[in-house]
Amino acid sequence: MKFLHTADWHLGRIFHQLHLTDDQAVALDQIVDIAVAEKVDAVIVAGDLYDRAVPPPEAVALLDRTWARLISETGAPIIAIPGNHDSATRVGYGASLLAKSGLHIVANFEEAIQPIQVGGIDVFALPFAEPAEVRAWAGASEVRDHATAMQVCLDRMRENFSPDRRRMLVAHAFVAGAKTESESERPLSVGGAGTVPYELFKDFDYVALGHLHAPQTIAPNCLYSGSPLKYSFSEASHKKSVVIGEMDPVSGDINVRLVPLKPRRDVRNLEGELLKLISGASNDPKRLDYLRVTLTDQGALLNAISRLREVYPNVLQIERTYLQKTSASQIQKRRESTETELFSNFYREALDGEPSPEELSLFQQAINELNRSEPLSEGASL
Amino acid sequence: MKFLHTADWHLGRIFHQLHLTDDQAVALDQIVDIAVAEKVDAVIVAGDLYDRAVPPPEAVALLDRTWARLISETGAPIIAIPGNHDSATRVGYGASLLAKSGLHIVANFEEAIQPIQVGGIDVFALPFAEPAEVRAWAGASEVRDHATAMQVCLDRMRENFSPDRRRMLVAHAFVAGAKTESESERPLSVGGAGTVPYELFKDFDYVALGHLHAPQTIAPNCLYSGSPLKYSFSEASHKKSVVIGEMDPVSGDINVRLVPLKPRRDVRNLEGELLKLISGASNDPKRLDYLRVTLTDQGALLNAISRLREVYPNVLQIERTYLQKTSASQIQKRRESTETELFSNFYREALDGEPSPEELSLFQQAINELNRSEPLSEGASL
Repeated sequence: MKFLHTADWHLGRIFHQLHLTDDQAVALDQIVDIAVAEKVDAVIVAGDLYDRAVPPPEAVALLDRTWARLISETGAPIIAIPGNHDSATRVGYGASLLAKSGLHIVANFEEAIQPIQVGGIDVFALPFAEPAEVRAWAGASEVRDHATAMQVCLDRMRENFSPDRRRMLVAHAFVAGAKTESESERPLSVGGAGTVPYELFKDFDYVALGHLHAPQTIAPNCLYSGSPLKYSFSEASHKKSVVIGEMDPVSGDINVRLVPLKPRRDVRNLEGELLKLISGASNDPKRLDYLRVTLTDQGALLNAISRLREVYPNVLQIERTYLQKTSASQIQKRRESTETELFSNFYREALDGEPSPEELSLFQQAINELNRSEPLSEGASL
Repeated sequence: MKFLHTADWHLGRIFHQLHLTDDQAVALDQIVDIAVAEKVDAVIVAGDLYDRAVPPPEAVALLDRTWARLISETGAPIIAIPGNHDSATRVGYGASLLAKSGLHIVANFEEAIQPIQVGGIDVFALPFAEPAEVRAWAGASEVRDHATAMQVCLDRMRENFSPDRRRMLVAHAFVAGAKTESESERPLSVGGAGTVPYELFKDFDYVALGHLHAPQTIAPNCLYSGSPLKYSFSEASHKKSVVIGEMDPVSGDINVRLVPLKPRRDVRNLEGELLKLISGASNDPKRLDYLRVTLTDQGALLNAISRLREVYPNVLQIERTYLQKTSASQIQKRRESTETELFSNFYREALDGEPSPEELSLFQQAINELNRSEPLSEGASL
């Protein structure tokens, strides 16, 4: 049984005020193409289909289009769950009818404990198991965190295990021991790890995980596929991909490999001096990438982001090593400067020269006028 | 070919701060029951499935449940369109896959001009034809209002007409000559009627309309089914129902009748004096109805709504004939009264007696203190 495992699509995500719909469409089209080329028997999407409970209409349309392409071009069933970013109710709309077309969106726990049979294997798909919701559903007061919530769900599933069948679990969780989260993941639990021990999954021949955005292997048969796109600059070094797995329905033996995805625009960090970066841009074939630029220049820089955007149109963030390194004593020194000293410094840095006596006198005159006027007293009472 | 025609479900509607989900569930269950009992060949929903573009999750769940019941219990195809309250993109999610299960949600114009064949008849389902959207889709600069938008859509449909087949149109529009709108309908056009002439529909053997909330017959073969529930007090006198129609696929002859719906709670207007209404409540078998109460009492009434709600828990609105009839001269007279006169009047009306000299003196003292204190000067400058 051959499957494609992906997760964390986060459709509708806004990255530094930028809608990523076009980038996501390119990634999802690649996923469909891979599923077709690999002739998979199933497509698994392990949660966080959308970036938020109420996604923008463009995201709804993209998901709709992707499901339709997958079903018509692969003929393989799709098994998907809501993650912690999704509204299970909204994502579950139409589920019972869509299942007839092979699109299995498992959005409630009652259905999660029933296996979906694909290629001789039982697939159990568990929507994000939020502790309070699991407690209410199972009437299980012992549920107090993500680990016990997962435990209760798996115990219920176990009642529907067939001893002679191999089985897969699809889940959205933070498995203990996995690599630290990226900035684009929303913590599952405030003030607690929200982790789930890997040992809970011992009854499954493969565990298709979602939640963490870096692809990673918890065990040879327990993987995070990672997100199809980089959703934060902290993910710049990630290699985004999908998992292609093959399971022997008799022995349960599993083979997995990663198939890389090629982004429409990469997410990169760039570092250097402003003018050097600008002059180097003409030789940069990936000028349209989404960039966080760290400028190493000393002193003030006027309109750095606008000047960079003339050559790198998708600079989304600028950082300055100079400002980060400004020591406390420098700040103290600046505080003790007179207005005229500050003005002269600024003039020097911005215009590369000294202010003329006329300019200095005009500036001093403005400061004097300002000082003569009544200060606005914030605490004045009527 | 036998069909059930309904419209304007407005799932997610809030009526005087009250979620109507439970009432809507009862109405939709009745519609399913009628469709089953009548053994219809098709169910038509002529727009405004939801009350707004982003409906609450309860509304999404209710629509999901209703589709599933209809499909599994009637086996008949459903043909539905978005109305002016719906987001076509959101309502259209999953449409191509759902159509395989017999749920045809036609949410774009390209699909609208292709007939859906049911029981030997061609059904053309047109999503709400907003002029700007029709203009963009058809590249038709002549579209300037709802009438020309409808004209362009029907012209495009005409290219797919089969001369030997009978046809039905499903549309969401305000047909000229229809009865005035209810308060719960959102006008289609600001500063213009937004109407569509009935003559445009002459090529259809039946027109299933949505938008107006009162069931009404534009022509023997052109009906508004009306909404399944009363969504404003202006609809208190409506008889809510669905249309059951039968069309001869050869002659095109049509028979229609209305099948009434029984609300979980009715929407009613009640008028009378407070105490009489309260004492009459014990004999009122419909005490749980949603009520607008018009009180005919003279003078002030303290806590009228709380007192009414002890016996009529779902009083949603109170009106006073006394206050409505207060003439300009009475208001003028009240303006000229002294504070003590106003106080005495209020005391008389609220407590049914005269204030004692001690009370009057205490009141006068409070007024004097208030007058002595500094007024808050709004325009004071710092």
